[in-house]
Amino acid sequence: MQLTRFSDLSLRVLMYLASRDEPLLATVTVRQASSLFNVPYTHMVKVVHNLGREGLLATSKGRGGGVRLARPAAQIRIGDVLRRTETNKAIIDCFAPACPLRRNCLLKEALDRAYDAFFEEMNRCTLADVARSPALQSLVSLPA
Amino acid sequence: MQLTRFSDLSLRVLMYLASRDEPLLATVTVRQASSLFNVPYTHMVKVVHNLGREGLLATSKGRGGGVRLARPAAQIRIGDVLRRTETNKAIIDCFAPACPLRRNCLLKEALDRAYDAFFEEMNRCTLADVARSPALQSLVSLPA
Repeated sequence: MQLTRFSDLSLRVLMYLASRDEPLLATVTVRQASSLFNVPYTHMVKVVHNLGREGLLATSKGRGGGVRLARPAAQIRIGDVLRRTETNKAIIDCFAPACPLRRNCLLKEALDRAYDAFFEEMNRCTLADVARSPALQSLVSLPA
Repeated sequence: MQLTRFSDLSLRVLMYLASRDEPLLATVTVRQASSLFNVPYTHMVKVVHNLGREGLLATSKGRGGGVRLARPAAQIRIGDVLRRTETNKAIIDCFAPACPLRRNCLLKEALDRAYDAFFEEMNRCTLADVARSPALQSLVSLPA
């Protein structure tokens, strides 16, 4: 069981911004973020676009522009972020190929409850909590 | 976030056996199971072999032989099964490529707690609970 790469990168971008000295003013460009996390530019475009659409990032134009946190990190709960980025919601695929057990299968309901328990536990953390990591405080300077 | 296909198939084989009229006596061959769930034989061999090694399935030799449940379904907790089949334990990969945030990252700890919450919730169900599904009771006859 793994988070999607999409969720993983979404969290990393948010954590990076939350760890800056002035989190609500700090910006990062898509190119900088793709370089920092060593992923293709086009992939990072999708990640940042989705976070913007979900109201988690805002755009700052002009010199020094880029994307920035749209809300204080202490108001962003990690479980809520993951519910928005884990778009492939089915934890088990009952149709590829079609499982002969699938009608009214009680396993699916149990898995859905466990999936909710996962998000609820993650909602005990805000972005501010996880961005307090010592590693983030001493992050190497951003590539130009 | 998805269960691995390996976990998925492991659960289906166990559920199938638990749903039979005499769950501790009912057997299925690897070939029958691969046909029932429409997966390659070699893949099902690995699934069944692992369930045997984990003490969940036993082998019955001779005519009508195959694998059977090694313990009553009411004594098999689904969370415990998944802990044994979800062998790729890292819910997030901090090293492919190496994340600049990874040292002492607080996200990882939070994810590990949420992963535990998922398994704990699944442990509220036994194999007997999920195999009570109406779909299982009316399962079509097994391929020969």
